[in-house]
Amino acid sequence: MTEHSNSDSKLDAQLHKEKMQKQKEKVDANIAAANIERGIALLLTGNGKGKTSSAFGMVFRALGYQQKVGIVQFIKGAQESGEVNFIREHCPQVFIHQMGTGFTWNTQDKVADIKASEATWEIAQSLLQDDSYDLVILDELTYMLGYKYLDRDTVINSIKARPYEQSVVVTGRGGGRELREVMDTVSDVKNIKHAYKAGVKARKGVDC
Amino acid sequence: MTEHSNSDSKLDAQLHKEKMQKQKEKVDANIAAANIERGIALLLTGNGKGKTSSAFGMVFRALGYQQKVGIVQFIKGAQESGEVNFIREHCPQVFIHQMGTGFTWNTQDKVADIKASEATWEIAQSLLQDDSYDLVILDELTYMLGYKYLDRDTVINSIKARPYEQSVVVTGRGGGRELREVMDTVSDVKNIKHAYKAGVKARKGVDC
Repeated sequence: MTEHSNSDSKLDAQLHKEKMQKQKEKVDANIAAANIERGIALLLTGNGKGKTSSAFGMVFRALGYQQKVGIVQFIKGAQESGEVNFIREHCPQVFIHQMGTGFTWNTQDKVADIKASEATWEIAQSLLQDDSYDLVILDELTYMLGYKYLDRDTVINSIKARPYEQSVVVTGRGGGRELREVMDTVSDVKNIKHAYKAGVKARKGVDC
Repeated sequence: MTEHSNSDSKLDAQLHKEKMQKQKEKVDANIAAANIERGIALLLTGNGKGKTSSAFGMVFRALGYQQKVGIVQFIKGAQESGEVNFIREHCPQVFIHQMGTGFTWNTQDKVADIKASEATWEIAQSLLQDDSYDLVILDELTYMLGYKYLDRDTVINSIKARPYEQSVVVTGRGGGRELREVMDTVSDVKNIKHAYKAGVKARKGVDC
């Protein structure tokens, strides 16, 4: 290395250090400003892959701190899923309920769908009223709102009235403006591309 | 119920059934068309919450089918995380390696960061060459590309050359056009809003 390039490299390292110091100050200030401690309401929406898997990632995040977790799956349950297999086999402490009727285009019976979604909502609501639960997952709840199978105000009011320390994760496309307003964090998972469209079959361990 | 509203309700049920039948035919045709069986390369990118948790949801999805899983975390590891606690305590069959230096604005040392990311990449690459792994998670790999700590072509070629049946999940903001091109599925997790900005502290079991 020449003396010239050596001093260039020192300058580069110094510039990097200064830039990163500024970045660190900014990050530290943001962390210091966020000091309210309470449960979070999170909505994972959008047409892309990763909403249910993200909710289940948070299940294991919570289990890593010995928290109490309840899961209600609207729609899902008619088909096998790896994450539910795992929970049923290894995590008996997790409460899980699946509506289990499949997508509404499978049942093709609106009256039966409404009845099933109302019964499932009763169970969801009991979790949202139970302060022993640290984390409640309401997987694919948004479709029940989109199809008007559940009353939007009832759902929103139950989320708002849940215990102060309880976090809730809602997943599914859509959900509407009123639901977004009541949630603390909203991520919109956009589909940029999907293997499925290129003819690749849904994969156990990734897709189901 | 009057006779009139009763017939309205029958008509509504019939229309619903027809609409759902059409939807089912469409879904069934798409499923039939997707018949290539191989591992999937998935990129979870964007500035919103849910990328790492989604990758870990897939870890448990895979474990629910007794698949073999390897995880390499670039950046993460300096701070505690619930999902890693859970894996270390309950899933000894999962290979996990963390770079563990924290974000680059914490170290403020470019030369040390490059060295750490290269050593971590060696481990990632060994998983991408091992066909006993069904699923490989490369958490926050994109930042190593963004900072040019790793060579983009080396990374992309390793992902392309991995075993045919192996799935790989890459997470992190950015990553670049070339990486997106090589991935089968790309989800862009957009931040609509975040509790953090409203002053709510990061929550164990949800955020970390």
